[in-house]
Amino acid sequence: MSNIGFIGLGIMGAPMAGHLADGGHSIFTSLNRSPVPASLEGKGVTVCGSPKEVAEQSDIVITMVPDTPDVERVLFGENGVAEGLSSGKLVIDMSSISPIDTKVFAEKIAALGCDYMDAPVSGGEVGAKNAALTIMVGASDEAFARAKPLFELMGKNITLVGGVGDGQTCKVANQIIVALNIQAVSEALVFAAKAGADPAKVRQALMGGFASSKILEVHAERMIKRTFEPGFRIELHQKDLGLALDGARSLGVALPNTAIAQQLFSACVANDGGGWDHSGLVRVLEKMAGVKLG
Amino acid sequence: MSNIGFIGLGIMGAPMAGHLADGGHSIFTSLNRSPVPASLEGKGVTVCGSPKEVAEQSDIVITMVPDTPDVERVLFGENGVAEGLSSGKLVIDMSSISPIDTKVFAEKIAALGCDYMDAPVSGGEVGAKNAALTIMVGASDEAFARAKPLFELMGKNITLVGGVGDGQTCKVANQIIVALNIQAVSEALVFAAKAGADPAKVRQALMGGFASSKILEVHAERMIKRTFEPGFRIELHQKDLGLALDGARSLGVALPNTAIAQQLFSACVANDGGGWDHSGLVRVLEKMAGVKLG
Repeated sequence: MSNIGFIGLGIMGAPMAGHLADGGHSIFTSLNRSPVPASLEGKGVTVCGSPKEVAEQSDIVITMVPDTPDVERVLFGENGVAEGLSSGKLVIDMSSISPIDTKVFAEKIAALGCDYMDAPVSGGEVGAKNAALTIMVGASDEAFARAKPLFELMGKNITLVGGVGDGQTCKVANQIIVALNIQAVSEALVFAAKAGADPAKVRQALMGGFASSKILEVHAERMIKRTFEPGFRIELHQKDLGLALDGARSLGVALPNTAIAQQLFSACVANDGGGWDHSGLVRVLEKMAGVKLG
Repeated sequence: MSNIGFIGLGIMGAPMAGHLADGGHSIFTSLNRSPVPASLEGKGVTVCGSPKEVAEQSDIVITMVPDTPDVERVLFGENGVAEGLSSGKLVIDMSSISPIDTKVFAEKIAALGCDYMDAPVSGGEVGAKNAALTIMVGASDEAFARAKPLFELMGKNITLVGGVGDGQTCKVANQIIVALNIQAVSEALVFAAKAGADPAKVRQALMGGFASSKILEVHAERMIKRTFEPGFRIELHQKDLGLALDGARSLGVALPNTAIAQQLFSACVANDGGGWDHSGLVRVLEKMAGVKLG
């Protein structure tokens, strides 16, 4: 059993850290604004004064924070993780952040004689609570082997995608496909509804054929049944498409449909929809067409 | 057993008519340019002098031709089907054409005391040969009941989507989703490749999660293995997205990502790719990014 630093005890991080504690590990954390969540009471979580202290106490430090600048601050800010690391320790970033900045962070950590890996997740709050997350890992084989027993306490579908950064790249690819499949289903069903067909019947006829997808199965049903409570919030998906579009600009890639989907998410936000489930993208297309799926 | 008129013995129509003949029906056809295909030899296909004569000889007339103007010509042109119909006959259009024009055609046929239904298919040449087509039907309950035994000789997944036109609307919805899911996978994997990740590994990591789809399973593999023989030709998918975009304009629906996908198909055609499998859309994005998936 190890001493594990876990920084970022939010909606995702708290249950993830809980599974590590249940697995027998000692958890060290530092707090930003919020206290230790009630769900972790009695699990022996030690609160340190700073990320630096967390790193001093831990063999492995996990970060699970909102965005790229948050990871940068926790790792390299004043009293950050980097100041508390000593040779041989391992840093695992499980946040969803820029694949490009990830490679920069990894180099800085490597210069301290430590390993760095990216291991973003999908599966949301439900997946985190049920220890059923999909974990997309960018790491050396050695670092992956060292971290795998921890991942197995938090997730189910664990893939070593490639070297450092490739986990984040895979997560971005996931978010591109999910957003564009939502828009695909939205355009198709809004067209069908405006042409006078029953969207539920159309969805049913298309299941099982080449149009079938997890999104047609799950999100199209949300659109038809008008259940737009998250799920996964549009404002979070916007952040992830921001990683895709910023990354695409840096790398030299054109992502025309991803750019359009981001604009429709912006239109949702403008209509107070930042907190809608991402299937709510359909509402903008409905409004433009003057029709509703359900 | 009935006398069935079958007009359009092309790549799809020939095996479909063959299954009807094998089911014991007598097939009547008229020829446009090509002779009766060799695959139908010995199946007792009667060649008439015109679509009008086909309609005179048949209880049910099936059309399976390339596009909306072809259906219009066969039905309402000189010596067309309409001239040979008498009260109580049934016209089934299995082509993939405009849902809006379909309703006009149905009214004209109804005025002759006959039934009209639309029953476009998906599943391609393989599905036609194996009698495994998906058939999306727009019809009255009575007409559907009358035609169902014929559909069961040609297809497997047979859905009465709604009234006349709704079968074509469903087919358009299918083609929108398939095209946009192809673009979704293309944008995601081109991004991943340009970021230095292995597209095959990324695809593998995403299978089974929210990004999963028939297109990720089948077409993404074609992109990675560079197998761009159809499958389904880009020039045919362009025709179908044309139905979507023309229909959207008539109906008052905005389909932004469908419009972009159509433009990328046009770019494929400009690069001699009209005959590529539709997964070849990825090549345009690859070219723009200066990277290849395989």
